[in-house]
Amino acid sequence: MNAVITTELSHPTREALELSAVLHALSDPVRLKMVRYLASSPDEPSCRSFDVPVTKSTCTHHFKVLREAGVIHQRQQGTARLNALREEDLAARFPGLLATILQAAADR
Amino acid sequence: MNAVITTELSHPTREALELSAVLHALSDPVRLKMVRYLASSPDEPSCRSFDVPVTKSTCTHHFKVLREAGVIHQRQQGTARLNALREEDLAARFPGLLATILQAAADR
Repeated sequence: MNAVITTELSHPTREALELSAVLHALSDPVRLKMVRYLASSPDEPSCRSFDVPVTKSTCTHHFKVLREAGVIHQRQQGTARLNALREEDLAARFPGLLATILQAAADR
Repeated sequence: MNAVITTELSHPTREALELSAVLHALSDPVRLKMVRYLASSPDEPSCRSFDVPVTKSTCTHHFKVLREAGVIHQRQQGTARLNALREEDLAARFPGLLATILQAAADR
């Protein structure tokens, strides 16, 4: 997989995004909750600000799965790790996919 | 999970479909290939007619995951097990989801 290195965290390039990896990343209820929170956040929330019912290490694992699938971008700022949805990249590769899944999650 | 029994095979009801289970079912490349084949089939193809690079038992497992997630309906006809996409149920519960994923898979 092609990857670019950003402050030691690897991210797949837009062209390297895989549909199956994105669907797998979004198939976990906790990860989907994280993504919904990111979609509603105007800024880049730090890992600590997510309200999810899992341990810190499990949370770190979920962020890693989301980042490696190309769903989120993470960058280090001091001691905080900031997170952002890769909405433009996902929309370019899989038009409508993220929006449709977020809508389906909101309708439940 | 609510389920109705059809010729010994259990299927979740439309109301019991879970987004995370559907996304998980579709996150496997082989299962997604099966679903694409079903989406393009006018009839109900039997399990034997799927051209996928896995053993028969793995194929049976994949069909089971798809059925239990509510993505496909299976029914027994003599010695053949016939398969159909639950397009109406999926569209009712998660509007646009299946179509968007099939489109994303086709664009690759």
